Amino acid sequence: MNHQDLINACQADWAEYTQHAFVKQLGAGTLPQPSYLHYLKQDFLFLKQYARAYALAIYKAPNLTGMRKALTSVHALLDSEIAHHVTYCSQWGLTEADMEAEAEDVGTVAYTRYVLDAGMTGDIVDLYTALAPCALGYAEIGRLLVASNETVREGNPYDSWISLYSGEEFQQGVAQGRDHLDSLLQDIDVNSPRGQHLIQVFKTATRMEVAFWQQGLNASQEG
Amino acid sequence: MNHQDLINACQADWAEYTQHAFVKQLGAGTLPQPSYLHYLKQDFLFLKQYARAYALAIYKAPNLTGMRKALTSVHALLDSEIAHHVTYCSQWGLTEADMEAEAEDVGTVAYTRYVLDAGMTGDIVDLYTALAPCALGYAEIGRLLVASNETVREGNPYDSWISLYSGEEFQQGVAQGRDHLDSLLQDIDVNSPRGQHLIQVFKTATRMEVAFWQQGLNASQEG
Amino acid sequence: MNHQDLINACQADWAEYTQHAFVKQLGAGTLPQPSYLHYLKQDFLFLKQYARAYALAIYKAPNLTGMRKALTSVHALLDSEIAHHVTYCSQWGLTEADMEAEAEDVGTVAYTRYVLDAGMTGDIVDLYTALAPCALGYAEIGRLLVASNETVREGNPYDSWISLYSGEEFQQGVAQGRDHLDSLLQDIDVNSPRGQHLIQVFKTATRMEVAFWQQGLNASQEG
Amino acid sequence: MNHQDLINACQADWAEYTQHAFVKQLGAGTLPQPSYLHYLKQDFLFLKQYARAYALAIYKAPNLTGMRKALTSVHALLDSEIAHHVTYCSQWGLTEADMEAEAEDVGTVAYTRYVLDAGMTGDIVDLYTALAPCALGYAEIGRLLVASNETVREGNPYDSWISLYSGEEFQQGVAQGRDHLDSLLQDIDVNSPRGQHLIQVFKTATRMEVAFWQQGLNASQEG
Repeated sequence: MNHQDLINACQADWAEYTQHAFVKQLGAGTLPQPSYLHYLKQDFLFLKQYARAYALAIYKAPNLTGMRKALTSVHALLDSEIAHHVTYCSQWGLTEADMEAEAEDVGTVAYTRYVLDAGMTGDIVDLYTALAPCALGYAEIGRLLVASNETVREGNPYDSWISLYSGEEFQQGVAQGRDHLDSLLQDIDVNSPRGQHLIQVFKTATRMEVAFWQQGLNASQEG
Repeated sequence: MNHQDLINACQADWAEYTQHAFVKQLGAGTLPQPSYLHYLKQDFLFLKQYARAYALAIYKAPNLTGMRKALTSVHALLDSEIAHHVTYCSQWGLTEADMEAEAEDVGTVAYTRYVLDAGMTGDIVDLYTALAPCALGYAEIGRLLVASNETVREGNPYDSWISLYSGEEFQQGVAQGRDHLDSLLQDIDVNSPRGQHLIQVFKTATRMEVAFWQQGLNASQEG
Repeated sequence: MNHQDLINACQADWAEYTQHAFVKQLGAGTLPQPSYLHYLKQDFLFLKQYARAYALAIYKAPNLTGMRKALTSVHALLDSEIAHHVTYCSQWGLTEADMEAEAEDVGTVAYTRYVLDAGMTGDIVDLYTALAPCALGYAEIGRLLVASNETVREGNPYDSWISLYSGEEFQQGVAQGRDHLDSLLQDIDVNSPRGQHLIQVFKTATRMEVAFWQQGLNASQEG
Repeated sequence: MNHQDLINACQADWAEYTQHAFVKQLGAGTLPQPSYLHYLKQDFLFLKQYARAYALAIYKAPNLTGMRKALTSVHALLDSEIAHHVTYCSQWGLTEADMEAEAEDVGTVAYTRYVLDAGMTGDIVDLYTALAPCALGYAEIGRLLVASNETVREGNPYDSWISLYSGEEFQQGVAQGRDHLDSLLQDIDVNSPRGQHLIQVFKTATRMEVAFWQQGLNASQEG
């Protein structure tokens, strides 16, 4: 099996995730700013847990090559991506310490701890399968947004987000991760118990992505 | 420190949990039946993960006495409590296999995987602290319901729930668990970094309990 | 693949384990008593860690059926097998608390922590593969001993050990565990990376079994 | 409590470790070369597992500061120290792949998996306590060797080892790690159950260090 089998097995959830109202409003530039700020703060907390999951991938890797590959991801998360969010949020006077002190919302807890537990329970293949909806989905969302005629680039306050995730660097990184996942999946029959279990893991993580977008959207309705 | 310090440090969340609308409507007998059925099915899935957490407590126990104590809990969960839910739900034609095949809702994932990850990350004290809001809270809810003049016993379709959690057997079991937790906490200064960390774990687990009630309530609004 | 592929891939180590001098001397009744007592005390500590590994199998099981299966093993270990060793050692005035306070020897640490780490790193299949050499090997040793004309039953101070592991109850229990392992392995190609990794896990655990016998033998030379 | 309490509680084991015959022969330049080569190959495998333990420290760290601190150690292990061993062993025509394919000896398995399991079972303090005998001991050995009049520097084939571990860079790195450990231990009473448990963890890891030296020494007697 490969990554496409995982996506095919949860088409409805995948569409709900990659074409969520949060994403469409972000593309159109109509997303309420409180939703975006809430999302960024929660995504900061998400990335911290995500870095823990890649640390687990170092622990679970079968050899030095695999350990070094996962190390690169931990590095990118702790040094680049988290720094990006901190820089962005600093315009509202928020420091890294402020952001780390924020309470994790339910969707953030659900998604991140699901990935960590699925990865701890299973082996490295389960872990990378649980991690996959995030990267694969964001890359697809980036491509969908730039291809959509509902997307507004000029004057869109979220255009830097669109640029980041549709950009060559992010797309290439995800393509490499996708190839790595495919190599891990290649000996697994999609109809075997293991194949079916991985499908459940991917589907559940995708459902948690939907909840993560939704909590961003809800933030502007609550306050 | 002891369990009361944990509760005192998150009074607002604790009140939101133990006095949630779901609980009050259950006590008054006005809770929509779809909410209750949704809750039971999710609680079945919750108990399965909870049994995994007590299995982790066997793994993390410092000695044979601690291992045997946690084993008793795994036993009670897998043999008694899960069986209770299955029996109850069988009146709607549901089998254990049906219930195990249900998708976990976001609140269920959030709460259970938080407990499992907090327990895996920390030691046995962290694990029992993350597990505590469930038992301590249900015992308090049981006591609050029987003491409240808003509670209706006769003709209340949920009276067996009230009986179960206000009953002597459940209350005594929780009292023993509470004493065990207090013995684990007794050397920890509430103001030490460790004490403050345990407060965060307890508070977060309590917040996830609130989300768990809320998803039950939402179930009757959605469908 | 199945359990026989695992054994076939480490024939020399398997023979060294199942036909170790410790075992032969035990069968002939010539094993020095200090070696046997040292072995029993270390095996007590081994069983405690082994129970932790089966607790991990509850945590890692994919469904309630798998959780209950592993629970049965934890039960048998904590209630029956450990009790057996305690009863046996009580003739030297040792209590369970005395035995739990013994220091773990290097071979005991190596074997048990290898199983626990291999199981935590991998999934439930890795865990049961790491656990397999113990049960499969003891069953084979029991059969080899009763079939060997070098074995002395009458007057052999270790005859109860031979009876236990060659006995119908133990042999049937192992046969069930072997069938369970075979069902877990059946979709895995012995030549796939996963198949080859499981072979390494089984082989390493087998090598640690050899070290465990050797430390028992060494005990009578040291003191 | 602090790191010195840990050492004080296992004086005999600590002396056996830091003044082991392997170390003394290395200092005198009389260590058989097969012992040294065996040690280096096993130490390469040890460092790989040690890097997994520091990856676990990223997973277990309470905040971003702690995660980044542990990341630095994973980096140093995977990029610098392992590279050093590979470079050294290349004079015997060994590649990194050759070294990774070596079988782990019993002492290597015992020590590394003990650290990993103690760290997984406990929290970050248990993990750093299990990791401590290695760094603290090597720093002490480095200092003892350069201070001893039995040590021969000139013409000693192992002088680069002495230089490395007595050197300013290594000594300062260990001093920082020691201060970090002391900060983790400062709220723990040495006589509390937790303090006594940490002493057991440190002592057991120290005993496994002794076994690690011994297996190096044994290597020249076996072959």
